Amino acid sequence: MSGLNDTHNPDRKSWVESANNPETDFPIQNLPYGVFSQDGGPKRVGIAIGDQILDLTALEEAGRLSPAEGKKVFSDGVLNPFMALPQNNWSETRSRIADLLDAKAGDRQLPLVAQTAVDMHLPIFVRSFTDFYASKEHATNVGSMFRDPDNALMPNWLHIPIGYNGRASTVVVSGTPIHRPSGQLKGPNDDVPYFGPCQKLDIELELGAIVGTSNPMGQPLTAAAAYENIFGYVLLNDWSARDIQVWEYQPLGPFQSKAFGSTISPWVVTREALEKFRVPAPERVKPLLPYLQEETPNNFDIHLEVSLTPPSGKPKTISRTNYKYMYYSSALQLVHHASSGCAMETGDLLGSGTISGPTPDSFGSLLELSWNGKEPLQIDGESRSFLEDGDSVDITGWCSGDYRIGFGNCEGTVLPAVTFGE
Amino acid sequence: MSGLNDTHNPDRKSWVESANNPETDFPIQNLPYGVFSQDGGPKRVGIAIGDQILDLTALEEAGRLSPAEGKKVFSDGVLNPFMALPQNNWSETRSRIADLLDAKAGDRQLPLVAQTAVDMHLPIFVRSFTDFYASKEHATNVGSMFRDPDNALMPNWLHIPIGYNGRASTVVVSGTPIHRPSGQLKGPNDDVPYFGPCQKLDIELELGAIVGTSNPMGQPLTAAAAYENIFGYVLLNDWSARDIQVWEYQPLGPFQSKAFGSTISPWVVTREALEKFRVPAPERVKPLLPYLQEETPNNFDIHLEVSLTPPSGKPKTISRTNYKYMYYSSALQLVHHASSGCAMETGDLLGSGTISGPTPDSFGSLLELSWNGKEPLQIDGESRSFLEDGDSVDITGWCSGDYRIGFGNCEGTVLPAVTFGE
Repeated sequence: MSGLNDTHNPDRKSWVESANNPETDFPIQNLPYGVFSQDGGPKRVGIAIGDQILDLTALEEAGRLSPAEGKKVFSDGVLNPFMALPQNNWSETRSRIADLLDAKAGDRQLPLVAQTAVDMHLPIFVRSFTDFYASKEHATNVGSMFRDPDNALMPNWLHIPIGYNGRASTVVVSGTPIHRPSGQLKGPNDDVPYFGPCQKLDIELELGAIVGTSNPMGQPLTAAAAYENIFGYVLLNDWSARDIQVWEYQPLGPFQSKAFGSTISPWVVTREALEKFRVPAPERVKPLLPYLQEETPNNFDIHLEVSLTPPSGKPKTISRTNYKYMYYSSALQLVHHASSGCAMETGDLLGSGTISGPTPDSFGSLLELSWNGKEPLQIDGESRSFLEDGDSVDITGWCSGDYRIGFGNCEGTVLPAVTFGE
Repeated sequence: MSGLNDTHNPDRKSWVESANNPETDFPIQNLPYGVFSQDGGPKRVGIAIGDQILDLTALEEAGRLSPAEGKKVFSDGVLNPFMALPQNNWSETRSRIADLLDAKAGDRQLPLVAQTAVDMHLPIFVRSFTDFYASKEHATNVGSMFRDPDNALMPNWLHIPIGYNGRASTVVVSGTPIHRPSGQLKGPNDDVPYFGPCQKLDIELELGAIVGTSNPMGQPLTAAAAYENIFGYVLLNDWSARDIQVWEYQPLGPFQSKAFGSTISPWVVTREALEKFRVPAPERVKPLLPYLQEETPNNFDIHLEVSLTPPSGKPKTISRTNYKYMYYSSALQLVHHASSGCAMETGDLLGSGTISGPTPDSFGSLLELSWNGKEPLQIDGESRSFLEDGDSVDITGWCSGDYRIGFGNCEGTVLPAVTFGE
């Protein structure tokens, strides 16, 4: 079923005209998967092409696309059944879809729907959510602020892709509003804690890797296998309550400070679509143990931006950074995650951790951008150290080269805190 | 459909004779749910009665038990569809089953199978696994060992039910062997870490609470609602790699040290079956914040034991303790878990944290029992500070009063480490 054309060929065009616009996130070389519905109807799997969506559920029902012989994988309203197929089925399906959308294709009677006419949904059933801490610049900034600028990194940081288990139940799709969380708070001068709305609500600019291929309990992974097991990537905003975190996190790590919402972009950009943008990891400060050695470049050159819009203001870009700065690739995160014999499953979401670059305008959180409130940002005449109710945050990201591979938007607006018991 | 007889009536007997043995874990007052299969056949939902299992999947198929009008809830091989029903359906089903098994019942043509003739499976799809740290004695012991005996408890401990997100994918049913995990290790005299098999493999004696009724994102719970939302309880052994933990856990908490396996007992004892064994929480050292105030006794008086069997030795009971020592009940853990607006879902498993009592013979981990190796246990002529390959650990638990409510067994045997890459 594999097409004759290379799905990475930069000269390839689509008969869907908007896909040939050099500024679109979704040219024929991208083909990201998402889940949509129309007019309150059932959830359907689709692929973005220009400003349109190709309805894969309809194509599968009509027998024109059969990723798995004899069973439906696009009929459940999530990508998990498709992601659980062998990896060659991912490639073959991508190739088949590219052929259907190719400018040279004769048949143009395909089920297309405008992106403006649909509601987008969470593209995957998030089996588990793990969040890492893999940007050296971010870890250094946080360590400098809260511990010791001369010993900012913990002793383990240069050896272990540090991570913790997050909360899968509150991963939501772009556009879902987020209530300001409440929690236990205790200032440095308070004798006892009190319960109330978070006063230091923050964002974390991240990329999320989605596991497609599972590994059983007791069977660790090599770096090469881990890279291949990742189906694709989404933008991720891991909303964080810094004041809840600082009181709760000893000794078992962040809990309710990270449990109230994590937003992902609706389009899953496949690993295969990012192939041409692979770059090596940053130079190692200390050698990594053998199980964490990578033989291939597993980072990606993805430009990332965060914009913040106050309730009655205009959007302002508050950070510009790049995924290539990550000290530990998502492949290495996955290797470490499975290293104890931990089973990893289809639909597991691995957050990169906050992606900060080397300069102050490339930091991936307000905590760092405002240096914990000491240097507030100026946005359209307003001052911001942390988020206010009504603020909207949007993350975007794209690769640029012979063509553009974009991720769409990852947006959320802050709603006021819910009063406890309401 | 509610029966005329009180399901807690101590005088009630069953026509299944083995259920009337005063030493059985499963009298007619218990009726715990589990999932079993026979001869490699499909998974079925059953209820334990004496040494038998009543096949609820068969009863539902035959139309003799209909917890949910018009849809099957016992046909998926897990309890989640049944647990997701409204709480009154739980009570009505329990009452209906008690009537079917009552000594006064006329019809004894029911699908029963001997417990010795089946394989037991994970009773629930574990949506998420959260592990708490809610025994004051355990937290004090650990703090004394690793920090400061005079300030053993962290400042937040008496205010917050401290917990962290665990790994759902490696929760397994009793009887599943556990490979010794490998991981990054670094002794106090090592310059750099190395990767190898854990040398301090431990158990954690816990009780697991299973969420039946979900709460949506953004809607916290009261203590009363949280208590009611819990469907039932299982025994839990949260296997732990102490040496991996000590090197990895700063600053985001335990990760691979707890990710390689957590064993639960196959029978879910319902909250309703434990009603007569409710006891108040221990006296509060400091007042809890209003959202953590309980108006009812939400702890349970459950006797718990751990036995350890060396490869060629005899079982020895190494700990006897009680769930009533828990400083924070599972209801309070659930309240705190949802306090930020975190959605809790059907099938969420909340581990109590290691249950240690006030005396050295009531500690719930080898770390405490051997005081981190300083006082090894003597077991059948062998010395044990931590687990050796081939060791088997079994947790049992029961309530005693007018009748006995038992939990069955929670057993696992340690297999050698897997060599990386095999």
